[in-house]
Order: sequence, then C-alpha cells, then structure tokens
Amino acid sequence: MKNEILFNLTYGMYAIGVKDDKKASACIVNTVAQVCNDPNMIAVSMNHNNYSHECIVENGIFTVSVLSEDTSGAVIGALGFNSGRDIDKLSNVRHKILAEGVPVLKENICCWLLCRVVNSVETPTHTIFIAEVVAGSDEAKGKPMTYDYYHKVIKGKAPKNAPTYQAEQPEEELDGNSWVCTVCGYVYNDPDVPFEDLPDDWVCPICGAPKSAFKRK
Amino acid sequence: MKNEILFNLTYGMYAIGVKDDKKASACIVNTVAQVCNDPNMIAVSMNHNNYSHECIVENGIFTVSVLSEDTSGAVIGALGFNSGRDIDKLSNVRHKILAEGVPVLKENICCWLLCRVVNSVETPTHTIFIAEVVAGSDEAKGKPMTYDYYHKVIKGKAPKNAPTYQAEQPEEELDGNSWVCTVCGYVYNDPDVPFEDLPDDWVCPICGAPKSAFKRK
Repeated sequence: MKNEILFNLTYGMYAIGVKDDKKASACIVNTVAQVCNDPNMIAVSMNHNNYSHECIVENGIFTVSVLSEDTSGAVIGALGFNSGRDIDKLSNVRHKILAEGVPVLKENICCWLLCRVVNSVETPTHTIFIAEVVAGSDEAKGKPMTYDYYHKVIKGKAPKNAPTYQAEQPEEELDGNSWVCTVCGYVYNDPDVPFEDLPDDWVCPICGAPKSAFKRK
Repeated sequence: MKNEILFNLTYGMYAIGVKDDKKASACIVNTVAQVCNDPNMIAVSMNHNNYSHECIVENGIFTVSVLSEDTSGAVIGALGFNSGRDIDKLSNVRHKILAEGVPVLKENICCWLLCRVVNSVETPTHTIFIAEVVAGSDEAKGKPMTYDYYHKVIKGKAPKNAPTYQAEQPEEELDGNSWVCTVCGYVYNDPDVPFEDLPDDWVCPICGAPKSAFKRK
C-alpha cells in the first residue's frame, strides 16, 4: 500500500482558536468531525507538539472557525505554519475574542463553534479531543473549503504536525522556472510573472515567508 | 445556534466492511479521518445501534472503501438504509472478501483500507473506533465523493444513525409533483417524467424501496 491512497480521505479546513494564560492563539487543522448529535459533539485530532494542544489540555475549551473557499492563503499560512509559542499568530488576522477568552475569525469563514472538551484519546503522535458544541454563530454562509481545494486550488501543503502529513509526498513535475518555499512547500510557477520579477517585499501567499526563503526547483 | 451550521463540516463517503461469525456485511459512514501518520491510523464514528458496530466490537477489524463520485446511489442505499441484522446487504453489491473475512467494494471506489482497532472512545450515541491501517489497495483512482456531493448531486439524506443526522433538517421547497421516499427521504421530482409514469418495478435510487414507499409531498 502506498501512503498516497490516504489522500483520498475527505476533510475540511478549520482554524482552531485557543487561549493560554495571557493571550489567544489559533492553528489550522483539517480533521474535525461530528461524532454525536445528542448532544452535538465533535472530534478534532491535534499533534502533541502543537502549542494549541497544550492550551486545550490546560483550559479544556476551543473554537472551530470553518474556513470558506474565500479564506486567503495568507490567513492559513499565518495560523498554520508558525507556532503560537514564538509569535502572536493572530496579529495580522481579523478576529474577535469571545467572552470565554478564545478567538474566532471574523472574515471569510462559514460559521464558528465554541467547544468544551469532555474526553480525549491518545494516538502515538496525536490526541483526539472529543468536545461538546456549546454555542455557535447564528448562521452559516459561503462554501466550506475542502482540504482538496486547499491542495489543488490554493496549492497548499500539509505542515509536519498534521495527521495527514506524509514524508514522501509525491513530487510534481516542475520545469526550471518553478520556485518552492522552503518553509511550507508552496510552489510558485506563474508563467506570466517570472519569480525574479516579483517585488522584493513579496511574501509566500501560504506562510508569509520572504522571497529569500524560496529556492529554484 | 442552529444545528444546520454543523452541515458546514466537510466529510467524505465510505463503505465500512465488517464480518460476524457467519458472513460479511457493510454500512455507509461519512466520519472517517486520519488521526496519526506514524503508524497510519484512522478514526471512524459509528452509532451504537448499528449492526456493524456490534461486528467491529466483536472482531476488531474492518475495511474502509472510499466511495467515488461514480458510486451509484443504489449502492449507498443498499448499504446505508438497511440493517445487516435483517438482510444480506451485499447481495446486490459487487465486492470481494479479503483473506481476513471482511469485504471491500469492487467497483467505483477510489481505494480501500484494511484496519485493526487499537482503541475506542464513547460518546452518548456513537463509538469512535481508532484503528491502525494495516493494508490497502495498491493505488487510488477517481474522485472521492464528498458528503456535500452526496446531498446536493445525488440528493441523498442522512439516516437516523448518522452522527450528522439532525431531526430538524430544513425542508426544501417542493411543488405538488414531488414524491418523497418514506424510507430514506429521497425526493423524486423529475419534470420530464411524472412519478405516475414510472414503471411499476422502479425502485428508489438511494435505498431500493419500491414505488409504493413514496408519498406525495
């Protein structure tokens, strides 16, 4: 069996909002699923190394912002390819802090959920948090972004902490004019605008890395 | 919060293959997610009332056939809206039985996985089985069917045992020429072929119920 067949499982794209003692933070996950409808409960899988994992274990509360197809790659990059231990990931992302201290995104999301952890189960690399949905946005709008859409249209990659990350991801066929981001793996190969012609302050649309972080493939 | 916002979570469509002491059976689920990549592990959520739940608890083994957009509604209906306690659900569905005694579908699937349960966690209505992926098909093909595609294109409904089932599903606007299947909720309203003109042996494309199981809405 090739690990690639696991890419045929279908997921959405979600920002998980958390809090520590001092501030709010957030990360991107794709494995959220409803696991009970009386009461409404969801499961989310999160890597042990994630700062958000630590926050959820400590505070037992998190939000789910359901990303839409209009959510920009820059938002996903800001939340998905950096650690809340090191930086304020929300500094450039429009959000609001709920009364409970956890953040939800403010633009280009379909809806949000507020969740309280009721149980958890361990795997060798990830914890599956089981949580009751205790509140949510009044309505939903837009088209939910699928993980497939993120990969094919936004051309995003899985960070190493994702449960769906595979070390041997198949390489795409690339010509000599493709440039790859060494932080997140995003490939730039717009035939109309050569990489060299991009302005100096251009940044990776996925993770915000500077132009200097790109290498020719 | 309206329960409908939970419809914005993204899922795929899967046939879970199981076995009891005598025979193989299968059911349809939408909540399968990878939860570990070293080793590869998945989680699947299943209602306590499902016969497949009983089989997995007893034997600790199951398969996942990843349905593609080409999988017919009749296959989903045969496996999703009947109980393996009552009938041989696989009798009209092309499949093969693996050496381990569990079935995988043979046509119109993207790929299949063989899984051994290593842990489980309870919710009030469902068990989340955590399982290691111990084998799978050599390759994947076709486009995975999303739950959204199933609802919007195939016009399927969630059976009562699904974790995503909501009692107050919003009613579609229907004219007097729409007929609804009382078994699975499929709505027939083809403007070119009135329901009355369908042949007597016509059956519901989702669950296989006879014409007599339909009521005018």
